[in-house]
Amino acid sequence: MDFSKIIQIINSNDSFLITTHVNPDADAIGSEMGFYYLIRKLNKSAKIINYSKIPYYLEFLDPDNVIEKFDAVSHSKLFDEADVLVALDFQQLSRISEMQDLFRNSSKIKLCIDHHEFPENFTENLFVDPSYASTGEMVFDLISEMKIDFDFQIAESLYAAIMTDTGSFRYDRTTSETHLRIAKLLETGINPNQIYKEIYDQGSLGKLNLLGSSLLSMKFDKSNQIAYMKITKDDLMKTNTSVEDTEGFVNYCLTIKGIKVGLLFFETETGFKASLRSVGKIPVNRIAAEYGGGGHMNAAGLRIDVAKIEDYEEKIIDRISQYLKGMEV
Amino acid sequence: MDFSKIIQIINSNDSFLITTHVNPDADAIGSEMGFYYLIRKLNKSAKIINYSKIPYYLEFLDPDNVIEKFDAVSHSKLFDEADVLVALDFQQLSRISEMQDLFRNSSKIKLCIDHHEFPENFTENLFVDPSYASTGEMVFDLISEMKIDFDFQIAESLYAAIMTDTGSFRYDRTTSETHLRIAKLLETGINPNQIYKEIYDQGSLGKLNLLGSSLLSMKFDKSNQIAYMKITKDDLMKTNTSVEDTEGFVNYCLTIKGIKVGLLFFETETGFKASLRSVGKIPVNRIAAEYGGGGHMNAAGLRIDVAKIEDYEEKIIDRISQYLKGMEV
Repeated sequence: MDFSKIIQIINSNDSFLITTHVNPDADAIGSEMGFYYLIRKLNKSAKIINYSKIPYYLEFLDPDNVIEKFDAVSHSKLFDEADVLVALDFQQLSRISEMQDLFRNSSKIKLCIDHHEFPENFTENLFVDPSYASTGEMVFDLISEMKIDFDFQIAESLYAAIMTDTGSFRYDRTTSETHLRIAKLLETGINPNQIYKEIYDQGSLGKLNLLGSSLLSMKFDKSNQIAYMKITKDDLMKTNTSVEDTEGFVNYCLTIKGIKVGLLFFETETGFKASLRSVGKIPVNRIAAEYGGGGHMNAAGLRIDVAKIEDYEEKIIDRISQYLKGMEV
Repeated sequence: MDFSKIIQIINSNDSFLITTHVNPDADAIGSEMGFYYLIRKLNKSAKIINYSKIPYYLEFLDPDNVIEKFDAVSHSKLFDEADVLVALDFQQLSRISEMQDLFRNSSKIKLCIDHHEFPENFTENLFVDPSYASTGEMVFDLISEMKIDFDFQIAESLYAAIMTDTGSFRYDRTTSETHLRIAKLLETGINPNQIYKEIYDQGSLGKLNLLGSSLLSMKFDKSNQIAYMKITKDDLMKTNTSVEDTEGFVNYCLTIKGIKVGLLFFETETGFKASLRSVGKIPVNRIAAEYGGGGHMNAAGLRIDVAKIEDYEEKIIDRISQYLKGMEV
């Protein structure tokens, strides 16, 4: 990717407002912090304003608390004051929720650096390249091109971004270049083990007990291609946990050889939700859509507000079986 | 490390007998296969004879079934026939069990390439360097020095070796060089995601159910620094699993912030076993030793043949608490 236009924008402006998508992950926060440190190294002014609060497990990436949570009253005017608005790790303005109009309507220079597909054409400075495994790698290449040294802080931020979005360097878009970038970042003395533990080793007794009861509930369908688990309100109460603690649980279904679709049913106040995951070309978003849900091909969800899991469980599993048979023809 | 002596031995000999330690892991098997393919590329003869069977989840690394399980009758004479005996990923001859004497007493050239500490001086060709994160990286550097191309098969073998022994590139001995080596291996077109899934995504319904019941049994001690779990004979029966299926379970204890020691108690026919894990400098091997067990500082085990878990549980937890207090002074 040609970064010369971005570099020209950075060099010819003085103040930058950086933001990222709602519910930011480590690629979002890490890319923001990397970009922020870059701007600060150039002795220019930078602010990070996000719609969502920084997740607790990423707070270590922002030791000086520079990331601000969006507040309409105090932040609105900044969108018309900063020289450049920088959109990192997202490509559609709907992804910044209530900041959308402020961003869109600003007359200032806008810059988007992202690796997701299907960008919205909200600026002429749209640097979107889905061949990158992470936005962190794009920020890395930008900094390299500018011949700025990677210091410890930049390296830690970008390492976190790249490591998480590549699934510890194993997802399909991980390339030789990914590893060459990481080799460079490690030269600063960052500690990969510590970064990993900060991000992932955030279990609690309640959460692991809850994972336990959901794994214990795991069952297969007749064809042994669908695995499904269940979490009840009672499970949450007993383990003193909430729905956020179930993040990632459904993925355990796909760690079994031969399993093509995994589901986690989750009892809500008056109904239930289900998370669906699949491998290959099984479109769980289409299955979810039949029940009013949606999502991506391999990761989707549905929600039924007044019903019991038991009323739908068999029906949904049967419907997935039909998809699996269709796929096999 | 200076590989010139190894290269000279390889170049001036024709037949190689390669072996590794009992219960081989991916670094053992991957390094063997990488070395094997190297020798075959040089049009020399190579055989791999291991004391243990190849683990099922590593069979993909040996598509042509070249690895043989040791058989005293048919294999003994080979130790006096091959030009060179190659010890990979181990540094003490006791680690090859009943092949030990055959290896030791052979008059042929012996070569040891390994990254573990405290090597036994069983050959003058002892190439042991614990600064390497994996033996696979030593084989990588050897092949690089010889200016032999990394083909797909060598790359897949060495990737599996390096990825697993570095915990997906996060353990402490992972360096910039590790990533530079991996960058080179990826150029051959190997598929990291597929290799990861072959090795790690080998769950079964029974195993995940068993993991569930052990996580559900997890408790903390009073200080919230020790987490412990329990697996009963009944759990195994209900999930149709065996002790091998519990590999890695104890590590879940250490995914919790603040937990310094994790234990898995495991009911046996007439007694029980316990696996202990710790972080930092807490010597769980010394604690295990007090009950007749042993191991490494951060990973140890003990076994009591006639007793109930309940008779010892509190005692052992109390003893660990004392160590934790001692550590803090």
